[in-house]
Amino acid sequence: MGAKKVAVLLSGCGVYDGSEIHESVLTLLSLANAGLDYECFAPDKDQHHVINHRTGEPMEETRNVLTESARIARGEIKPLNELSVEAFDALVIPGGFGTAKNHTKWAFEGPAGAIDTEVRDAIRSFHAAGKVITAFCMAPTTVAKAFEGTEVHAQLSVGTTEESSPYEIEAITDGMKSIGSIPNMVSKADYSYDEENRIFCSPCYMMDMGIAELAASIDRTIQVMAKKL
Amino acid sequence: MGAKKVAVLLSGCGVYDGSEIHESVLTLLSLANAGLDYECFAPDKDQHHVINHRTGEPMEETRNVLTESARIARGEIKPLNELSVEAFDALVIPGGFGTAKNHTKWAFEGPAGAIDTEVRDAIRSFHAAGKVITAFCMAPTTVAKAFEGTEVHAQLSVGTTEESSPYEIEAITDGMKSIGSIPNMVSKADYSYDEENRIFCSPCYMMDMGIAELAASIDRTIQVMAKKL
Repeated sequence: MGAKKVAVLLSGCGVYDGSEIHESVLTLLSLANAGLDYECFAPDKDQHHVINHRTGEPMEETRNVLTESARIARGEIKPLNELSVEAFDALVIPGGFGTAKNHTKWAFEGPAGAIDTEVRDAIRSFHAAGKVITAFCMAPTTVAKAFEGTEVHAQLSVGTTEESSPYEIEAITDGMKSIGSIPNMVSKADYSYDEENRIFCSPCYMMDMGIAELAASIDRTIQVMAKKL
Repeated sequence: MGAKKVAVLLSGCGVYDGSEIHESVLTLLSLANAGLDYECFAPDKDQHHVINHRTGEPMEETRNVLTESARIARGEIKPLNELSVEAFDALVIPGGFGTAKNHTKWAFEGPAGAIDTEVRDAIRSFHAAGKVITAFCMAPTTVAKAFEGTEVHAQLSVGTTEESSPYEIEAITDGMKSIGSIPNMVSKADYSYDEENRIFCSPCYMMDMGIAELAASIDRTIQVMAKKL
């Protein structure tokens, strides 16, 4: 029997308009260290916008989510519409604003923002096949959007109001609740696991932490996930 | 006494036209794990070109080295001309084609390609101040260019012809020799250290390896470097 295989769903390349780079690279590292094979995917469409990561301001240009995600994947990436759920044991979604700008529009419209249909269908398919889904950082909001209006009420978490965060954890948590999820508060040192739905979440950079803490938290979650595959 | 401090010199964001993203992120992680503070820098100028990382083809657009490097640094980056050598104990340069396209023109002209004067001056200043320089992957060619025409004949390495590599290790090694360096062959599992000049090199993705091996080799080199600071 070969190694278990994980699909990694990216949303661009850079925390403010794409996948958070540290989270993405450390996810790939942890998957490799856990003995899991992986393949990267991203939607083949224009990014919502391009943010100058030095100034935080939008730039007057257009970039493609898949093409930019390919930077993180060193060219080894496929369009999301080529993802066959049968070939994989789990789906992992790193964070970054890209998941809330390109996978959904949560960054602009909160829980009312639409989810990309390919992203929605991928998440629903992994769940329907009884496979594991792991969502880091802001990505649990994308998972919440995928199950909006369904019978699935997943336990999800983007962190806790008890610890320091640069983001509005309470508002995001309320938003997930408003569309049918069962959000809970999780320390940055921990992860949440919905056993019934087989969904892991870990706050990552939603909470204040350095890269060493980030690596440890991603690695712990991936290690536990690996045992469930 | 505070933590030792390391300047990390980036060259964009993406293996084919900037800093190799895995090498850069894993460098930051290893520095943090070694208890070292770091700050990122990059030249504030246009990239040589922009490569579509899915197809490998050039794109008709212009990107700035500093602005793109800011993606890896999550916005925490300064222009290279603001780097004060006195504030740092070491300089670390991750690889990627960016160092041979934006720091020098080695990717296009081999050892005849010009080095960016700010990059050259930064490397020379760290060396002149007796501080450590660590160059990963292709970055030793940039260090070689910095010392071209000087009294400094540094021992450098970009890997070995004895192991599998996607690149022309022998030609690059010959090129470094032709401009005054003393290149040597180093296994991907090892690093080179020039004690007189205080320069570490490790092959990283110049040799065939996966992300787990890469992380281990960067971490080993940074740990040994940390003891020299």
